[in-house]
Amino acid sequence: MIEDVQLRIPGPSPVPPQVALAMGQPMIGHRGSEFSALYERLIPFAKELFGTSGDVLFVTGSGTAGMETAVANIVSPGDKVLLLTCGSFGNRFGQILAAYGADVDRLEAPWGECIDPNAVATKLQAAGPYKAVFVTHNETSTGVANDLKAIGHAVHEFGQGALLVVDSVSALGGMEVRMDDWHLDIVVTGSQKALMLPPGLALIGVSERAWEVIDQAQSPRFYFNLKKYKASGDKAQTPYTPNIALLFGLEKTFALMQAEGLTNIYRRHDLMRDMVRAAIRALGLELLTADSCASSTVTAVKGSSEVPSEPLRKTLKEQFKVQVAGGQDQLKGEIFRIGHMGFAGPRDMLTIIASLECALAVHGKPEVLGRGVKAAQEVWLREVQR
Amino acid sequence: MIEDVQLRIPGPSPVPPQVALAMGQPMIGHRGSEFSALYERLIPFAKELFGTSGDVLFVTGSGTAGMETAVANIVSPGDKVLLLTCGSFGNRFGQILAAYGADVDRLEAPWGECIDPNAVATKLQAAGPYKAVFVTHNETSTGVANDLKAIGHAVHEFGQGALLVVDSVSALGGMEVRMDDWHLDIVVTGSQKALMLPPGLALIGVSERAWEVIDQAQSPRFYFNLKKYKASGDKAQTPYTPNIALLFGLEKTFALMQAEGLTNIYRRHDLMRDMVRAAIRALGLELLTADSCASSTVTAVKGSSEVPSEPLRKTLKEQFKVQVAGGQDQLKGEIFRIGHMGFAGPRDMLTIIASLECALAVHGKPEVLGRGVKAAQEVWLREVQR
Repeated sequence: MIEDVQLRIPGPSPVPPQVALAMGQPMIGHRGSEFSALYERLIPFAKELFGTSGDVLFVTGSGTAGMETAVANIVSPGDKVLLLTCGSFGNRFGQILAAYGADVDRLEAPWGECIDPNAVATKLQAAGPYKAVFVTHNETSTGVANDLKAIGHAVHEFGQGALLVVDSVSALGGMEVRMDDWHLDIVVTGSQKALMLPPGLALIGVSERAWEVIDQAQSPRFYFNLKKYKASGDKAQTPYTPNIALLFGLEKTFALMQAEGLTNIYRRHDLMRDMVRAAIRALGLELLTADSCASSTVTAVKGSSEVPSEPLRKTLKEQFKVQVAGGQDQLKGEIFRIGHMGFAGPRDMLTIIASLECALAVHGKPEVLGRGVKAAQEVWLREVQR
Repeated sequence: MIEDVQLRIPGPSPVPPQVALAMGQPMIGHRGSEFSALYERLIPFAKELFGTSGDVLFVTGSGTAGMETAVANIVSPGDKVLLLTCGSFGNRFGQILAAYGADVDRLEAPWGECIDPNAVATKLQAAGPYKAVFVTHNETSTGVANDLKAIGHAVHEFGQGALLVVDSVSALGGMEVRMDDWHLDIVVTGSQKALMLPPGLALIGVSERAWEVIDQAQSPRFYFNLKKYKASGDKAQTPYTPNIALLFGLEKTFALMQAEGLTNIYRRHDLMRDMVRAAIRALGLELLTADSCASSTVTAVKGSSEVPSEPLRKTLKEQFKVQVAGGQDQLKGEIFRIGHMGFAGPRDMLTIIASLECALAVHGKPEVLGRGVKAAQEVWLREVQR
């Protein structure tokens, strides 16, 4: 079948053709004026996207490289830090912190639930002070969105100067981030999620206050040394050879995002979330996460003994041409995850749901045909007609 | 909204990203060995696609340029020809024939119906001999497929040597064509339909028997002179500068088509037809064409006083991101036409139908939500499960 499999995993996400073409521009030298001009064109919208008047820096590497950059520049061995975790990517922050010798306190939420900002405030008061607090904005492994604004305010009010470091890899660009207003000190994202690019570029926002800590931090770092990125960035360069094709593509995605407008982009992601959730309920499947904690970029759906998630996922991909992700770690085999971020819109949600219904029919549930689509259509129609 | 409008008009059709990238290869000179090597790589599958051991030639121009090439090389002023027409593109053949001074007899079918091969046999016997018979394989304006095999046999048996010239612009590559077996003498197609390329290239199959007539034809022609294309083609070149990017792309589409296999491609197109038709019926809309004449690449749907087709089409495109075509000539404002050719598959049909349902809901038919999708899903499931 010539029909491509529609990639609806929570990253990498589909790349718009215009962006792919922009990435194909002829290479330029990264020490020349053309590169600096490109760099300077990128910065204003990057700051708008992060909601900061501080710095946004580009590290060539995956989202994990961005997370390690944050840790390596903040944490000295023995530093006491607070890790907020509710899933696999929160735990990854914990693994990186352990590798850098941090003394880690953990505040956990069960997988599928979000971090309670009040519990953060209580923990900070009871067990602080901490050098920094680490949090996952959007827990990709469970489809949980943490309330970054409320957590930011809790750390600001009760953190006794602790920095707040945010993994927003699977949210930024699809869900609102306001670094300055929400008191976020370091925010990391990756190119391959809501920014609609292939993987390979981490974007890192750094607050004024963070630089003071970075200046003092003792962990060894060279490639991940943010001070080098800052010094080069002030000359519109990067310290090491950057992924120029991804920066070409980033310019195009920024243009697309500016044309749509950030408010519309966030509303589109909320709409996709609401359509998928309405459809999943109409299909008689169970959502992993309550509405109050639901991510706008990824939705996790529980398998059942009747229709286990892995065979369903296989049928959906192989026979009906939509690829969704499985579960990770303790949720492996228990859930499937639908990515709806970046280059995706409500029409695509109808496609996903219609194909999912076909897969469910193959697995003995022919009665669901059309039901989920109808529920998703009704959500979209409410948005269109309001 | 960043979501692209899905282009489901009956051509141009969507271009696969791999093909778009292949078209971006660096230019080559059209008189060099690289070009001849490309040309030679294209010919074997081109012949398979046309079902001929004769010639397949490339004329840089639209499908109409290909149709004119056929006329200009066959028809001398005053030649008596038979035109079989059942729509706008059949009539276009008639306009070209008139421009070349042919004496045109017409055998017409009402728009929405197909040509009766028995009527062709009768006409040939009653009013022949003709220099040539002109027929539209797939009438894009109405979504009608003519029975090319039966017409080919009628002309072969009762045509007293008349050539059969076929416009297969919107069929070839999506519906079977067997030039040699079906006694077709000239077959024309374009790049922008089932061949999944942008417009700009006509492919023309020419039988041994046709060359004898071409040698004698008196109409003036230079750019469209097929003998020049044949002479250059024998040296793996074209007489005039070809659209090299489209030939790069053609090599890629041929590779994709070979990988899928022609039998599977034709079955996929039949499946798309059947899904769309089942859905349209389930939505309570009226098809223009009977099943027996239904095209596998384009389906025409009647508007009604309740839901006129033009406002529906506008809503579908602007609010629900699927673009279908309107009617042409006498059907303008009366029908809309869904293209399902080339880079399209059954999952895409679910998308079209789900979006169409949303548009119908906006136009006062909320009760249809999910219904057409279900009908299309059932057709797909039968195919998957057989």
